[in-house]
Amino acid sequence: MNKLRVAIVGFGNVAKEALAAVRSAPDMEAAGIVLRDPAKVEAVWRETGLPVALDVSELGPVDGAVLAIASRAIPAVAPRYLERGIHTVDSFDIHGDAAMELRRDLDAVGKAHGSVAVICAGWDPGTDSVVRALLECIAPRGITYTNFGPGMSMGHTVAVKAIEGVKDALSLTLPKGTGLHKRHVYVELADGADFETVRGRILGDPYFCHDETYVFPCDDVERLLDLGHGVHMERKGVSACSHNQRMEFSMTVMNPAATAQVMVSALRAAARQEPGCYTMLEIPPLDYLSGEREALLHRLT
Amino acid sequence: MNKLRVAIVGFGNVAKEALAAVRSAPDMEAAGIVLRDPAKVEAVWRETGLPVALDVSELGPVDGAVLAIASRAIPAVAPRYLERGIHTVDSFDIHGDAAMELRRDLDAVGKAHGSVAVICAGWDPGTDSVVRALLECIAPRGITYTNFGPGMSMGHTVAVKAIEGVKDALSLTLPKGTGLHKRHVYVELADGADFETVRGRILGDPYFCHDETYVFPCDDVERLLDLGHGVHMERKGVSACSHNQRMEFSMTVMNPAATAQVMVSALRAAARQEPGCYTMLEIPPLDYLSGEREALLHRLT
Repeated sequence: MNKLRVAIVGFGNVAKEALAAVRSAPDMEAAGIVLRDPAKVEAVWRETGLPVALDVSELGPVDGAVLAIASRAIPAVAPRYLERGIHTVDSFDIHGDAAMELRRDLDAVGKAHGSVAVICAGWDPGTDSVVRALLECIAPRGITYTNFGPGMSMGHTVAVKAIEGVKDALSLTLPKGTGLHKRHVYVELADGADFETVRGRILGDPYFCHDETYVFPCDDVERLLDLGHGVHMERKGVSACSHNQRMEFSMTVMNPAATAQVMVSALRAAARQEPGCYTMLEIPPLDYLSGEREALLHRLT
Repeated sequence: MNKLRVAIVGFGNVAKEALAAVRSAPDMEAAGIVLRDPAKVEAVWRETGLPVALDVSELGPVDGAVLAIASRAIPAVAPRYLERGIHTVDSFDIHGDAAMELRRDLDAVGKAHGSVAVICAGWDPGTDSVVRALLECIAPRGITYTNFGPGMSMGHTVAVKAIEGVKDALSLTLPKGTGLHKRHVYVELADGADFETVRGRILGDPYFCHDETYVFPCDDVERLLDLGHGVHMERKGVSACSHNQRMEFSMTVMNPAATAQVMVSALRAAARQEPGCYTMLEIPPLDYLSGEREALLHRLT
């Protein structure tokens, strides 16, 4: 068997888990790590024992790349890989227009260079998107609620940290049910900062002003950090002429590990599609799994 | 828009719900019903107001057929439609070798005649199969349990009814958890039959002798009949190097309605695939849904 040679781009939480996922996949091998910062190359090489480069061309033949980098960097970075015929996968998490624009752009690049991009391939967007479609396949009429948490919101945590008077912070998303959420923000104050003043700034911030938000003072934010997260999706709808069809999907996971594993599974699927760009809604689910096709069908059908 | 013209084959519980699903689909229209028994034609015509025929050729142009008939009849019936270029969908529920053989046979017929068969397209096998694949995409290592019920098992009910001394019967499947089940059998005795004797026959029957089975006497089985059913799937597994990733999918539904709706959604997908035979594991989930592709992606991603 020709193993898929995979480059990991980035070396944050998701990238580290992606490397572990590639190493445990029977049909893949890690080609190396691509970093942006030359100062980190040696440390990452010592930690992983793998080639570490500033450009993927230094890693020898590479079939696919896991882009474990910030969503906002994806539109610029993905084409550089696709243009070399390297498949890409990302967990781009800006829903809506931005995702559709990315899909159009990468589709053109992939088709021009014989490569495949799978975008929005984490757990939401990603596997949750597939579940949403499946629930509508079973009951086309009705409402689906997606409830997130409890778990850390990266975006909101970064937003709080940028507020004046905040030394360290953690923003948790907690589900209220029926698709509504509240936020619990834990703040470690900077020297001399006043809690009520900082609390007022957080509640007035555009990231928080539309949500039910509670701010708590905290001596040591580090002590609260946990990368667990969860989701609970519910649909009540109509199949044919029968109402009150009830469906639920829920998950409680180590967040970067789940994201990374879905990305690696999606990269396997990328290698099995025609050139272009795909979301997980556009890929046959069997393509994510390693193993002989008929044996998988026999076991899973 | 060219609506998909759909024939419903059969007129049992699933077929009636399939007709309702076709009628409520914005992109389909019912071409008519195909029956095997000439004696029933007039009654079905009166009930539905649709053309009813003994052969699909009498229904005018037909794009696809919902084969709402017994699984054992599918291998002989499906090719007759595929040979005319009519796509088929079935909810063939014999897992394992029989399904793989059906897939190979219908794949050849479909490819020869430019038509598509989607097989095993109910909720299990069917949407549950897709969920099983998705759970392995998130956590490739681990165990998935599929727990059925509480709900009526058609096959086991038919088996009990065939036992000497039984006038009417109902066999329920109840989940014990971790993929194990027990059966509750309600029997209405034939005149002069002895309950303990009948109970012994049921417990010794090949359908029941391997399962934990409880037999209850009942004056009126009809009064207990309810077409609700359910499933609860659980997986605990490993994503990348993180253990104890927990996932669940559950559903409680009117069984024939859910089956029929999935079949109709799968027939829509059939019309979007290349000729051949597919299980739901081999079809992009977006293809089950009606509506403009990019709008669906925008909403569901």
